[in-house]
Amino acid sequence: MLKVAICGGSGYTGAELLRILTVHPEVEITAVTAEKSAGKKITDIFPHLHHYGSLSYEPLDREKLCSKADLFFMALPHAASQDSVDFFVREKKKVVDLSADFRLRDPKVYEEWYRVPHKYNATLKKSIYGLPELYRKEIARADLVANPGCYPTGALIAIYPALKHSFIDPVTIVIDSKSGTSGAGRQSDVSFFYCEVNEGLKAYGIGKHRHTPEIEQELAALTGKSIVVNFTPHLIPLDRGILSTVYAKLMRRAETTEVIEAYRDTYAKEPFVRILDEGSFPNVKHVRGTNFCEVGITVNTRTSTLIIVSTIDNLVKGASGQAVQNMNIMMGFEERVALKIPALFP
Amino acid sequence: MLKVAICGGSGYTGAELLRILTVHPEVEITAVTAEKSAGKKITDIFPHLHHYGSLSYEPLDREKLCSKADLFFMALPHAASQDSVDFFVREKKKVVDLSADFRLRDPKVYEEWYRVPHKYNATLKKSIYGLPELYRKEIARADLVANPGCYPTGALIAIYPALKHSFIDPVTIVIDSKSGTSGAGRQSDVSFFYCEVNEGLKAYGIGKHRHTPEIEQELAALTGKSIVVNFTPHLIPLDRGILSTVYAKLMRRAETTEVIEAYRDTYAKEPFVRILDEGSFPNVKHVRGTNFCEVGITVNTRTSTLIIVSTIDNLVKGASGQAVQNMNIMMGFEERVALKIPALFP
Amino acid sequence: MLKVAICGGSGYTGAELLRILTVHPEVEITAVTAEKSAGKKITDIFPHLHHYGSLSYEPLDREKLCSKADLFFMALPHAASQDSVDFFVREKKKVVDLSADFRLRDPKVYEEWYRVPHKYNATLKKSIYGLPELYRKEIARADLVANPGCYPTGALIAIYPALKHSFIDPVTIVIDSKSGTSGAGRQSDVSFFYCEVNEGLKAYGIGKHRHTPEIEQELAALTGKSIVVNFTPHLIPLDRGILSTVYAKLMRRAETTEVIEAYRDTYAKEPFVRILDEGSFPNVKHVRGTNFCEVGITVNTRTSTLIIVSTIDNLVKGASGQAVQNMNIMMGFEERVALKIPALFP
Amino acid sequence: MLKVAICGGSGYTGAELLRILTVHPEVEITAVTAEKSAGKKITDIFPHLHHYGSLSYEPLDREKLCSKADLFFMALPHAASQDSVDFFVREKKKVVDLSADFRLRDPKVYEEWYRVPHKYNATLKKSIYGLPELYRKEIARADLVANPGCYPTGALIAIYPALKHSFIDPVTIVIDSKSGTSGAGRQSDVSFFYCEVNEGLKAYGIGKHRHTPEIEQELAALTGKSIVVNFTPHLIPLDRGILSTVYAKLMRRAETTEVIEAYRDTYAKEPFVRILDEGSFPNVKHVRGTNFCEVGITVNTRTSTLIIVSTIDNLVKGASGQAVQNMNIMMGFEERVALKIPALFP
Repeated sequence: MLKVAICGGSGYTGAELLRILTVHPEVEITAVTAEKSAGKKITDIFPHLHHYGSLSYEPLDREKLCSKADLFFMALPHAASQDSVDFFVREKKKVVDLSADFRLRDPKVYEEWYRVPHKYNATLKKSIYGLPELYRKEIARADLVANPGCYPTGALIAIYPALKHSFIDPVTIVIDSKSGTSGAGRQSDVSFFYCEVNEGLKAYGIGKHRHTPEIEQELAALTGKSIVVNFTPHLIPLDRGILSTVYAKLMRRAETTEVIEAYRDTYAKEPFVRILDEGSFPNVKHVRGTNFCEVGITVNTRTSTLIIVSTIDNLVKGASGQAVQNMNIMMGFEERVALKIPALFP
Repeated sequence: MLKVAICGGSGYTGAELLRILTVHPEVEITAVTAEKSAGKKITDIFPHLHHYGSLSYEPLDREKLCSKADLFFMALPHAASQDSVDFFVREKKKVVDLSADFRLRDPKVYEEWYRVPHKYNATLKKSIYGLPELYRKEIARADLVANPGCYPTGALIAIYPALKHSFIDPVTIVIDSKSGTSGAGRQSDVSFFYCEVNEGLKAYGIGKHRHTPEIEQELAALTGKSIVVNFTPHLIPLDRGILSTVYAKLMRRAETTEVIEAYRDTYAKEPFVRILDEGSFPNVKHVRGTNFCEVGITVNTRTSTLIIVSTIDNLVKGASGQAVQNMNIMMGFEERVALKIPALFP
Repeated sequence: MLKVAICGGSGYTGAELLRILTVHPEVEITAVTAEKSAGKKITDIFPHLHHYGSLSYEPLDREKLCSKADLFFMALPHAASQDSVDFFVREKKKVVDLSADFRLRDPKVYEEWYRVPHKYNATLKKSIYGLPELYRKEIARADLVANPGCYPTGALIAIYPALKHSFIDPVTIVIDSKSGTSGAGRQSDVSFFYCEVNEGLKAYGIGKHRHTPEIEQELAALTGKSIVVNFTPHLIPLDRGILSTVYAKLMRRAETTEVIEAYRDTYAKEPFVRILDEGSFPNVKHVRGTNFCEVGITVNTRTSTLIIVSTIDNLVKGASGQAVQNMNIMMGFEERVALKIPALFP
Repeated sequence: MLKVAICGGSGYTGAELLRILTVHPEVEITAVTAEKSAGKKITDIFPHLHHYGSLSYEPLDREKLCSKADLFFMALPHAASQDSVDFFVREKKKVVDLSADFRLRDPKVYEEWYRVPHKYNATLKKSIYGLPELYRKEIARADLVANPGCYPTGALIAIYPALKHSFIDPVTIVIDSKSGTSGAGRQSDVSFFYCEVNEGLKAYGIGKHRHTPEIEQELAALTGKSIVVNFTPHLIPLDRGILSTVYAKLMRRAETTEVIEAYRDTYAKEPFVRILDEGSFPNVKHVRGTNFCEVGITVNTRTSTLIIVSTIDNLVKGASGQAVQNMNIMMGFEERVALKIPALFP
């Protein structure tokens, strides 16, 4: 049994890790940290997790935790994660970091977008970007995996095959994303009060969202060129789910069927990517609670544009499910363990 | 008092006309038609309209209606509207048609997208596209106003000043729209069952939605060139509201402030368009139940892209409110009569 | 024009007063207070209230306010309202207090349920409970009206005629109420975060809710006897609306039609109470945004129980609309002014 | 491997059976019927069930099905289930019937409430009411289990211990239930259109709902006396979940702790019932997607009333999960197999 600790277990991604891992046969949760809730039972905050009846939150005491666990899921806020990740990595622990702290390879880019310096360049260099569809081999050998952001996960899976097969002109990419409200985290800001979000619909962080450089970094890695994208997130009145609608000009004539074929080839062995048939488009409700990414594709011949729609559950494939997938790969477990349950529909 | 009839009063746009007109001091509703509900009281279908306690639905008997009313709101389905509109126009009645039947100036385009022939070319030629921000003068003189579609209303208000001031390259326009569910009409299709829509999120009609040629027609009229756009609608789990996010490449360098200034100039005298301050973006919840269109603007300098976000209530500015605005203009009433009430928030 | 000030204008009831009063022809808003937001524009907090473009929040400076307004709406939290209400009343101003501070006639009962002493017994004695259906005459002569709580409003309108006509046994009353989330106020508690409320459903404050003594006080006043009731509120994932389902054992055989007749007699002259036909039951969606209370009634002959269902919009008839209705009565305005607009449906 | 067929697999309860059974190690789905969708793939109707990629709907051909399966889940509408249930039982198959056809022991009561005659009295006599908390032993030996209605499941679990321990007076029971919209089935009635349900709240079938005699039958069986109850269901704008608030007068003084103790004794060995601590009350969101029933209890000493709040997921413990639980008991499988997954929260 792998001993696993979760650092930052009082937010939604922490709770989601606990939910998913209840059915993982190879994993034992030995510690869950939360500073403000230290001493409280997990079920005091999350009554639905009564499977962990006897487990309580504890403070993040790194040395003590080292004796308790061999793999760490870090679900701390950005910037707060750096110190502990570095510590655990140096202690030869396996780490999956759900924060943004080790996603951006260039510490200057990190500092520019997150407004804090990066203190651990050596550790940063060891970090692998944890999108299995792109980096499975590297993840398998990694000690530190930087779990991707929710928006980049859906966007990159949508764009990657089109770039790989040179269907689209990278300078024309528009990513219009719509996210459920759990993406904001479990917080008490009045702008996320029920009555403010419900029956509302708005864009936010236009051109400034911190997931932008993460998407651009990976697109640059794929193409070998510097790429900038238009990325606009929107807040939608539902709990879970991100739908990204991606637009890019075709570089050459292509039929929808041909593009779908290329996508299916690219993802033929992927356990969690489903390319829909021509004429079908995905709905976040069909991936709710699951680690799947569904992708619908069409060529608009009138405008010579490829339009790709992808859906994920932001808390699963966009966070905790992908983290478990990464753990499975890192530890040599079957990749789908604990991630096979169908969507909760309706 | 102007005698007004509503043809097709058992759907949401019909009900919304009735709701708005309760506070119109110059209007008397003399007839409301609905074939299947003929004989029923309006309050049998819409209990919230008890202000019309004694009014019942009647069948659409054109000749009888001619003796009852001088202005007709046509809220019939597409194709079903043609015959009656032509009849009332020839009878010298004023008509505001909320269907799509008289919006597209070219009957071939109509036939291509709506799959039915247009039978009344002479009447079609008299029709004015009822977007007051573009055609107020023509509307004032018109006998037949084709009330715009909900998506085109929000999209055109968002795009018009940018084209007028030559900020953007028309061939790069992407319109990503998100609509509340009342846009689907009051219908019993299982795909609009509560549990199918709630907690769901999907794109539909990608590249094929019938509002596409309507948008393109007006952009062509503005620029004098044939323009094709990428337009993708999405279904959102809320009752009312359309948010459109528009992307287009800048033709020249421009600051956000300069663009906002140009928008404010363009719409300086418009009673129902509000251009937000730099850094502010609109939320459909702030226009709910109102005839306002709110517009937020930003220039993404990294990608040389102008991004415009507009919001409307699809049943008001996107349908019945705009119809009343058009009536006010046609009849010489103050344009804002019956349309001044603030949004219902929260 | 009546000069009106709103003390506590940054919450939902304050905003709702502003929304309703935009169409009131006899009223001029001269001041709106909010401590934390003092200096900010009203539209900074509530963009939908752009009708008050130039108005800003100011601190609650009682003496300064006295020179600005003749009628005060107090939308402060409980306990915080006492001092200012007493001050304005002594300054011969008219006051409608939306807090609970002057609703309970017995200061001991107030202290028991609200855990603070009542400091102004003399002013308390002058206060009239502002349910026009019970106290219209007294309200017309009052200087201080204590606007009822949202739950008591719907419950008392539902119960009053049954008690008046001695249909029911007062010791058997069960009031099961369901409220939209705006009833919690505009707050940042994590338990009202969108994702916590949405797709959730729970009871709260069972047997302990502070509206209980208010209901009991008025039932005692009606019957001349001490009455205790079971009152259970529930939190529902919607913005606005309270539906109360009331159960009480019949004291004598009665047909549904007979009870409906008695209710219609009782409320024959009430402008905002609608008694539905036999077999019809109300839906909060049909009173949304309005000052109406709708009531459906049935006798369950199998259990000898009278079941009454009432609906209100908690922010309108349950708060700000009723406050305006009370102002209209106090000032001799037509009672329905500014309160005639139909529900926003859907 | 147990061969299992699902008759009526195009509704929500059929889909939910398929969802739950994906993780059941002892079960193989060999046939799923649906008349209108015969020939279509299951994933054509329910894309989230792609685990059954190759399975298609077939017509309900009883003889053919007999050769395919040994246990039948019947998810047909009421009345439509009778013939097939009787057939499969006579063919010595095991049957779990999710319809109401074999729940009411007295065929006259069935006929009175369902307005159709019962044709199979001999088979009806063999039927066991499938609430494991009451009838586990009988279920283990049964060939035909009548799976309880969703409302009765939550109500009976809430009431049973209070009656068993003689805390409450049975003639005073009020059951006020609130249900998510999936309880209406997957249907196309316009009254369940998204915009009609969303932001709405209403009671329905007051005193007439068909689950009333089912509740009364079981309460009579428990007490040996004829009992009538007030049962009122309400429609709530959420997908899943029933919360029932039960009120009954105490027969004797009792403290909340004492009642909780009695409930915990009664359900000590129940794997799916959780009695909450004093002061805690359940939320449907914490049982979403699970087979749990959570119960909160309080004594209102002011009114001498016991108030019990229970929550279930109407599609799981209220339908398909309980059906699987019953199958597990009937077949000698561990009772919790396939039913251990935590709630999907948020």
